[in-house]
Amino acid sequence: MADAIHIASSCHCNIVGSFEVVNWISKHYKGKFHALNIGGQVVSGLFKVKAVSANHSSSMPDGTYGGVAMGFVINHPSKCLYYSGDTGLSYEMKLVGDVYKPGIGLFPIGGTFTMDHTDAILAAEYCGVSEVIGLHYDTFGPIEIDKTMAQSDFRIKNKKLSLINIGESVDL
Amino acid sequence: MADAIHIASSCHCNIVGSFEVVNWISKHYKGKFHALNIGGQVVSGLFKVKAVSANHSSSMPDGTYGGVAMGFVINHPSKCLYYSGDTGLSYEMKLVGDVYKPGIGLFPIGGTFTMDHTDAILAAEYCGVSEVIGLHYDTFGPIEIDKTMAQSDFRIKNKKLSLINIGESVDL
Amino acid sequence: MADAIHIASSCHCNIVGSFEVVNWISKHYKGKFHALNIGGQVVSGLFKVKAVSANHSSSMPDGTYGGVAMGFVINHPSKCLYYSGDTGLSYEMKLVGDVYKPGIGLFPIGGTFTMDHTDAILAAEYCGVSEVIGLHYDTFGPIEIDKTMAQSDFRIKNKKLSLINIGESVDL
Repeated sequence: MADAIHIASSCHCNIVGSFEVVNWISKHYKGKFHALNIGGQVVSGLFKVKAVSANHSSSMPDGTYGGVAMGFVINHPSKCLYYSGDTGLSYEMKLVGDVYKPGIGLFPIGGTFTMDHTDAILAAEYCGVSEVIGLHYDTFGPIEIDKTMAQSDFRIKNKKLSLINIGESVDL
Repeated sequence: MADAIHIASSCHCNIVGSFEVVNWISKHYKGKFHALNIGGQVVSGLFKVKAVSANHSSSMPDGTYGGVAMGFVINHPSKCLYYSGDTGLSYEMKLVGDVYKPGIGLFPIGGTFTMDHTDAILAAEYCGVSEVIGLHYDTFGPIEIDKTMAQSDFRIKNKKLSLINIGESVDL
Repeated sequence: MADAIHIASSCHCNIVGSFEVVNWISKHYKGKFHALNIGGQVVSGLFKVKAVSANHSSSMPDGTYGGVAMGFVINHPSKCLYYSGDTGLSYEMKLVGDVYKPGIGLFPIGGTFTMDHTDAILAAEYCGVSEVIGLHYDTFGPIEIDKTMAQSDFRIKNKKLSLINIGESVDL
């Protein structure tokens, strides 16, 4: 949840999350929430956000149960993004490819607690994307990576791995 | 668990559920239980009930961990029912099709916390059923649906969506 | 976790487990730990151990949430073992076959809380192994099995089911 409360209060926006996560965070922050579970969808303007399966645990800061981990497919008429969430490689990513045909993947690449970049290349193949924005790497020791090698391994498979610096923005 | 205790005490029947759910409910009700986990099977007369995977969270009324969500395949010599449980669409439904070849699906269709009817059509394709009984819709605001459109969308795909009123029964 | 602390303290070895399990056990034992989540990998000498998905609940002895259940793929230059963990049959086992091409499966075969031997034959087909070492059977009533029938059913499918006695060791 990291900066969720800070962002939501700055932007006056809703927080979308699993029933259990929303339930927990609503005790710490009096904002607007949209609770869902896997299969649920939120529509906001031209955006449709769909909750899909992720292979990861979900415990809250106090150790209580945080529901099941989720990824999100973010659909806009101009483009479809698949944010896998923290997850290991899964056949459910083939389902995302079949049903949503995403154009870009936002995938963890740091290993240890998620996919590493080798798994992320397979994830891109499973869901049919050729461009991946890397997440969940280099922020602490166990998930430090060799960025040059990761990007090179993607290129060998005719895929692109974009790595964005903190504060940087990209046009999709 | 809703009316589980009421039904079990009225019918003097066993309650079948996951280890964690049975553990919790047995503190509130002194009945007979049959605990299992995914892959487990209960045989009762001509019925075989098999626990299969579902993509959903499972927390108890007090917020504690309720194990993993489950669906159930209910096998009888005359017919095989696949009750998916509350779940999002999943490739595991293809496994149910491969292994059990169910004749009827009992699927959630309300969205937000489960599949909507569009996902349920894909679920029917994944597991190879042409008839679905719709569940988990219209009981509160976030899961209200357009029943006419849902049934029409099923028909377009050469499938049948049956919607049963509370108290109504159907012959399968 | 059973004998994990006893084994770790006898062998002075690390305990590898999910973030939530390691967190819990580290309150009861002051040893060395390696926490990971699905997709994570531990390298030790010539061994690479990769955490993969399993379909099972994970609650700690005090009922608290123990993260998601895991299997482990144990890679050594001479052989690749797939220890599925306690699990039901899953399409994720096809992923293990595609990515790791294991030579031997260590699968539960006792039913009720895991796969039974019939599911384990399908698991072997899903991940492409012809030899399985059976686990999680005969230690208490609900998971007692007919060992002769189980081994015969494997043979019919041109697969081998090895059942090892407690204290016995095998060369792989």
